[in-house]
Amino acid sequence: MSITEVKKAKTFDGETIFYSHESSVTKTKMNFSVFIPKCEKIESAIIWLSGLTCNEENFITKAGAQRYLKDTNTMIICPDTSPRGLDLPGEHDSYDFGSGAGFYLNATSDDYKENYKMYDYISKELVGLLKSEFNVSELSLMGHSMGGHGALVIGLREKNLFKSISAFSPLVNPTACAWGQKAMSGYLKSSDEAKAFDATELVMSGESRPDCILIDQGLDDEFLEKQLLTENFKNACEEKGQDVKINYREGYDHSYYYISTFIEEHINFHLHALRC
Amino acid sequence: MSITEVKKAKTFDGETIFYSHESSVTKTKMNFSVFIPKCEKIESAIIWLSGLTCNEENFITKAGAQRYLKDTNTMIICPDTSPRGLDLPGEHDSYDFGSGAGFYLNATSDDYKENYKMYDYISKELVGLLKSEFNVSELSLMGHSMGGHGALVIGLREKNLFKSISAFSPLVNPTACAWGQKAMSGYLKSSDEAKAFDATELVMSGESRPDCILIDQGLDDEFLEKQLLTENFKNACEEKGQDVKINYREGYDHSYYYISTFIEEHINFHLHALRC
Repeated sequence: MSITEVKKAKTFDGETIFYSHESSVTKTKMNFSVFIPKCEKIESAIIWLSGLTCNEENFITKAGAQRYLKDTNTMIICPDTSPRGLDLPGEHDSYDFGSGAGFYLNATSDDYKENYKMYDYISKELVGLLKSEFNVSELSLMGHSMGGHGALVIGLREKNLFKSISAFSPLVNPTACAWGQKAMSGYLKSSDEAKAFDATELVMSGESRPDCILIDQGLDDEFLEKQLLTENFKNACEEKGQDVKINYREGYDHSYYYISTFIEEHINFHLHALRC
Repeated sequence: MSITEVKKAKTFDGETIFYSHESSVTKTKMNFSVFIPKCEKIESAIIWLSGLTCNEENFITKAGAQRYLKDTNTMIICPDTSPRGLDLPGEHDSYDFGSGAGFYLNATSDDYKENYKMYDYISKELVGLLKSEFNVSELSLMGHSMGGHGALVIGLREKNLFKSISAFSPLVNPTACAWGQKAMSGYLKSSDEAKAFDATELVMSGESRPDCILIDQGLDDEFLEKQLLTENFKNACEEKGQDVKINYREGYDHSYYYISTFIEEHINFHLHALRC
């Protein structure tokens, strides 16, 4: 496995770098960005999973996260949200399915099963890359919207891989919302498979983490009521005894302006867990 | 004069807002963004002028400036870099002339003189708007690249309008570089007019400010040697006794990653001047 540097820019004394590599999981080229603070040795990494329509660039240019990592031994890595360069049936027809909308699951439908393996790409290949190419030993995971869904699902299922998980504005119950239903029905062969990629269903089925899950949710988020369904996850966690902290934010929406406001809290949450 | 809110997002307890308005100077619709911190009363504003290819969105999404203004009485305003919606001869043919490249001058060439009046747009109409629509009394001015040129030129010529001026990676001597020569020859009727829009020439001709001008310049900036010519301005200031502080930054380039690293210093420089 080898990675190719695409571009880099010195940032807060460290380096923001864009890489590409040939993925054995998606069988395509994949892209990601990182911020590597200036330090003697990188010890840990936070993985950031972006939302619908995003790629590896949105978070690293808009969230202002570099400032909060600059004096640490923790890097951040931001993978793209889907394979690119393919032309599968329906792949480029809408913003909420196919390219830019991989949904962090392993597809089983005939059209998508060869490439749309974002669950394995993140939890196996990207995690492997962090160890082999960046010598990182400890990991945390967070994301936004579709990427918040990814962080909750991967973090609940791969509980030993991550010291902590958090999410901004996550789709907590994709089998119960239009975005998730469209994605699941396109990517998966049968609807029975969908529960394994739904955070609320996972908690209800007994999956859990020993640590507290952190969730951030703007109360003026236009997608809260119909797509995000935050309370469904809260109720499931209450019922099953999963520790979760949900910070509702008065007046905030779904944008990176909102993320930039609270990213410091999330980074500090993960830094605390990574140092323990 | 009235302005129309296009969109807004709560940010660091304040508001990032995009506006448009009908400009009497450019005779087009013009766009700008602002960040207004939560406070009892806004007292002052920093105007940010962006560089080539940018519009009113780049700075407000990428620089991370909101964080440093959140506990102040100072707003920031980021105008677009040219009129839009026109189709003048050659206006959309290249990245360094016409749309996205207004160069903050008043055009006199036949094709552009009716609309490309960015000098007056900033120094008269936008300043007027800040007073009439936002009740701002004190102003400072900064910018990047072409916008750094704009900040130096407008700040030197309108010295009483601004408490302080600063620039990231400015074109300090546009009459001596390819970008500037192309712009000046396209926008101006005769080359004699160009000196009035060249910071180094203005200092050499006796223009000055009573305060220290702050300049930030990355040493790995690919445009430093051929377009920015920072030392020409430094030499002119030394010769004429204009106080200037130039911070050269080892390893930094021309990007917003670089700007985000040092924007706090510039904001604090202006806040200090605005409070005096």
